[in-house]
Amino acid sequence: MLLEAIYHQPKSQYAYAYDEETLHIRVRTKRGDMDRVAVIWGDKYNFSDETITETPMEVFAQDSLFDYYHAEVKPPHLRFAYAFKFEQGKSVVYYNEVGFSEGKMQSSGVGMLWSPSGMFEFPFLNPIDVNKPPEWVKQAVFYQIFPERFANGDPSLNPPETEAWTADAEPTRTNFFGGDLQGVIDHLDYLKNLGITCIYFTPFFEAYSNHKYDTIDYLKVDPQFGTNEKAKELVDEAHKRGIRVMLDAVFNHSGYYFPPFQDVLQNGANSPYKDWFHIKEFPVQTNPPNYHAFAFEPHMPKLNTENPELKEYLLEVARYWVEDIGIDGWRLDVANEVDHRFWRDFRATVKRANPEAYILGEIWHNSLAWLGGDQFDAVMNYPVTNSIIDFFVKNEIDAESFMGRLDQLKIAYPMQANEVAFNLLDSHDTPRLLTIADGNKARMKLAAAFKLTYFGAPCIYYGDEIGMDGGADPGCRKPMIWEEDKQDHELFAFYQRLIELRKNHPALQNGTFRFLSAEKNKGYVAFERTDSQDRFVIMMNSSDKKAKIRTSGFGKAAFRDTATNKKYKTKRGQLNVALPPLSFVILKEQ
Amino acid sequence: MLLEAIYHQPKSQYAYAYDEETLHIRVRTKRGDMDRVAVIWGDKYNFSDETITETPMEVFAQDSLFDYYHAEVKPPHLRFAYAFKFEQGKSVVYYNEVGFSEGKMQSSGVGMLWSPSGMFEFPFLNPIDVNKPPEWVKQAVFYQIFPERFANGDPSLNPPETEAWTADAEPTRTNFFGGDLQGVIDHLDYLKNLGITCIYFTPFFEAYSNHKYDTIDYLKVDPQFGTNEKAKELVDEAHKRGIRVMLDAVFNHSGYYFPPFQDVLQNGANSPYKDWFHIKEFPVQTNPPNYHAFAFEPHMPKLNTENPELKEYLLEVARYWVEDIGIDGWRLDVANEVDHRFWRDFRATVKRANPEAYILGEIWHNSLAWLGGDQFDAVMNYPVTNSIIDFFVKNEIDAESFMGRLDQLKIAYPMQANEVAFNLLDSHDTPRLLTIADGNKARMKLAAAFKLTYFGAPCIYYGDEIGMDGGADPGCRKPMIWEEDKQDHELFAFYQRLIELRKNHPALQNGTFRFLSAEKNKGYVAFERTDSQDRFVIMMNSSDKKAKIRTSGFGKAAFRDTATNKKYKTKRGQLNVALPPLSFVILKEQ
Repeated sequence: MLLEAIYHQPKSQYAYAYDEETLHIRVRTKRGDMDRVAVIWGDKYNFSDETITETPMEVFAQDSLFDYYHAEVKPPHLRFAYAFKFEQGKSVVYYNEVGFSEGKMQSSGVGMLWSPSGMFEFPFLNPIDVNKPPEWVKQAVFYQIFPERFANGDPSLNPPETEAWTADAEPTRTNFFGGDLQGVIDHLDYLKNLGITCIYFTPFFEAYSNHKYDTIDYLKVDPQFGTNEKAKELVDEAHKRGIRVMLDAVFNHSGYYFPPFQDVLQNGANSPYKDWFHIKEFPVQTNPPNYHAFAFEPHMPKLNTENPELKEYLLEVARYWVEDIGIDGWRLDVANEVDHRFWRDFRATVKRANPEAYILGEIWHNSLAWLGGDQFDAVMNYPVTNSIIDFFVKNEIDAESFMGRLDQLKIAYPMQANEVAFNLLDSHDTPRLLTIADGNKARMKLAAAFKLTYFGAPCIYYGDEIGMDGGADPGCRKPMIWEEDKQDHELFAFYQRLIELRKNHPALQNGTFRFLSAEKNKGYVAFERTDSQDRFVIMMNSSDKKAKIRTSGFGKAAFRDTATNKKYKTKRGQLNVALPPLSFVILKEQ
Repeated sequence: MLLEAIYHQPKSQYAYAYDEETLHIRVRTKRGDMDRVAVIWGDKYNFSDETITETPMEVFAQDSLFDYYHAEVKPPHLRFAYAFKFEQGKSVVYYNEVGFSEGKMQSSGVGMLWSPSGMFEFPFLNPIDVNKPPEWVKQAVFYQIFPERFANGDPSLNPPETEAWTADAEPTRTNFFGGDLQGVIDHLDYLKNLGITCIYFTPFFEAYSNHKYDTIDYLKVDPQFGTNEKAKELVDEAHKRGIRVMLDAVFNHSGYYFPPFQDVLQNGANSPYKDWFHIKEFPVQTNPPNYHAFAFEPHMPKLNTENPELKEYLLEVARYWVEDIGIDGWRLDVANEVDHRFWRDFRATVKRANPEAYILGEIWHNSLAWLGGDQFDAVMNYPVTNSIIDFFVKNEIDAESFMGRLDQLKIAYPMQANEVAFNLLDSHDTPRLLTIADGNKARMKLAAAFKLTYFGAPCIYYGDEIGMDGGADPGCRKPMIWEEDKQDHELFAFYQRLIELRKNHPALQNGTFRFLSAEKNKGYVAFERTDSQDRFVIMMNSSDKKAKIRTSGFGKAAFRDTATNKKYKTKRGQLNVALPPLSFVILKEQ
């Protein structure tokens, strides 16, 4: 056994409460090293050979180096002391907090009266510490709208020098096209027809730029977009159609024209707002800035979220839009650069206003530190984005790497955070999916199909569904194409069909996910999604060659292609499918 | 290179803020596997081959399987993106969030405009998130007092059937000897003479039992011990002598006679206190209990710290003793079974009352989940206790295992938590040190000497310093022996000398700690404590044979034995010392 490969950390993503009675326990080993792995556990106040239980563990994720084992346990008194047992041939190794030992479990020191010392512990499952994200997100399909570019419903609000809304309009960093909230209301039926269930708006609060990430007033809709009443109307009209609304909160930094920052620029150390920012010295200079800013952008001064007055103001913002306007969630911009204490209080405020509100952090890297149940429900799942793009769109990694990178994320967070992760493929911050794919629609479809059959909530960037393209900002921010003859209707129907399939089958939303094929040097994968109702087998060929995909371990079973109704049957427990280049099938068991 | 052995987790004990400008970055590798390890880092908004820095890492902890590398970095804009570089012979491997790659760094996906995606990140060092334990604890030597058994200063308070305070008194689970707060006041000069700087009291609030862990009134000194005014007098008198005071808070459970629990027993579901406990169903039954309790003890009902009214009451308790009575810290009983949100609010309350108050959790196992700066300053360091006992007292593990187990703890927590860890060898919950050592005073002294020259705050259990013995509870709770002819004065002088040495030399408190010798199958160790002032080399022989201890890597240097003044010189960079069985030397460089 390779002991160096074995990893466990108590009270982490390797040992956490899944719900008020269930613990998830996990351990990592070298890939293929073990014949059997078990968790041995009991009550810490009554832990002896007679009272302990041995629960077998199953491999639930894999990468090129490791197997990740998982077990679910329900300790009757909500207290849990445990160790692991590894078997390889005749060799048996135990592992607890003291370390590894052969043949029998090791303890250490003198211990308390009632139990041996040295076990791992999950001391008590307190309900308030359980991470419980809103259930609705598991069923949701999101649609991202950049308000200035989705639809112009009220030309009377157009800013000066608004440019013409045409299919060949060229967005720049500074121009305007007149998109507004009325425009969104006018097209809610379009969105309902597409099938999406929640709109994610990039900011629509008063700000200077066209992207509105440089807030001037967090409590007011930008006059170019409408009024707070119009926002309420939009939320109400969306709700009537079964569509929820999530807003974008930019609490890491304000805009340059945020009045408190202007006050500091003017009054320096005498400003009552001087501690709302991170000013290094007075007088304030903007070039180069002598204050912390977003990136190196002097026009986006970083907010000092430790300051009690600023904090009170921002928490009122958080409450107002949820409680008074009725939004269903907050997407938190640059969430990783704001302090953790702020987010804990933010969560308490938002969940008090609406316990079902979704709190989503924008974090591009490992986000475990924010997903313990005290801060965010989930994060924008860029590592999944990147893996899907590297495999299906850029064709740069093989199936084994693809599996390894996705499965590393499965083990990276508690399961409930993965269940409501936000899976996007592009956004206002990246080139559009069709452009990343160099216009290859087949590759774009593979990526979208994977996202729409994977766990976590999928999000579609406005216009992708009708074939819009565009490079990095500003190219990806073109005005939505509403001229029907310039829309890709076949692509729209493709998205519509997959969204519908996902919504009709909880197995595709939140069923178990398991790779059936993900081999080294291969360009195809097969995976399974199952729940108590349904079983899907999905096979996807990302290579430019025909693929013969073989999967085994089935009994006698029959499947039907959800797109064509073609029938597939297992033979001697195998399900083998030949796929043309750049194609996929979603098979549902009959 | 053994890739399976390499481990890093962002925003954990492997990557954390040490102070407002410094990050500690760590990575684990197979022991002896690497020639060079470095962290490669830069600002995430300006990350390119031209702007990144390569900082070499040093081994700072070791066990039989792994080397743990450490580096300190100060990112100028407080933002930090990073990867690792491993070198073994001509082979170079890079490691970032995407995984391992040979020869050059890997990135993934499309990234933001400004930086490659796939690096590890410490996104922003927000001051409020930095764990800043009180400085005084680094210099402290604690002394634990079990109030019923330390000294009887006011016989008028004696409970009925108080037994005689004699050197051969036999404690039982239920008898009383009349110890009280006046008794402690009377002996403060004894404690000052011993040299300790902080008293840790097990509970002295009104309760039923002799140990007082079954609280009746959290806001009142038990009448057997005195009054709240007497407690204030005790704190003031202690402070006059440079001695601080820490109390024990039992917030996991109350006593059976806690009035709110009595109310629930009487009024069941109609009691206004019914949600202060975890009652599973009404009517309440006590045998077996149909409510959660401490262990399986029906007389200690578990408190429901989620309940807002109870929480308000307990937080007022936390505030009162710190702010109104002036105590310097709280030791939190069964801290691991109380919910994390409660502890976060507890910390905010206590630090508001006194930012220098020490918050110490009683946790017997890995405590990382409580040491992020939002809950406790430190925990009672039982894994160190156990390791010291297994090596020096029971002689059950070899020097390499001893080093491995201590060094695993060094890497288990952020350094600031280790700096103020609470190191005990025995307590009211375990047999006394001398008894664990089967009366072998030489072994007892080895353990005590190690504790008093190790980092973290040492604690002495009342009476150990004069040679008291006793088995597990109740044996370890004998009345303190005050008859001078029955005290071990040689042992007292031993403790006094080592406490004085520690207090005079910050290197012994908070200097760097490094093993110089810790070999497989050997029973002796050597280690170094250094700071900018001093350098100590400490050699300890826990075997029953004479030991020749060899250490190397010195220049030309001379040392003096702090006990005997005997001189030692290095020869060709080596410092070799012959030690009799069960002995030690503390050498200080001249």
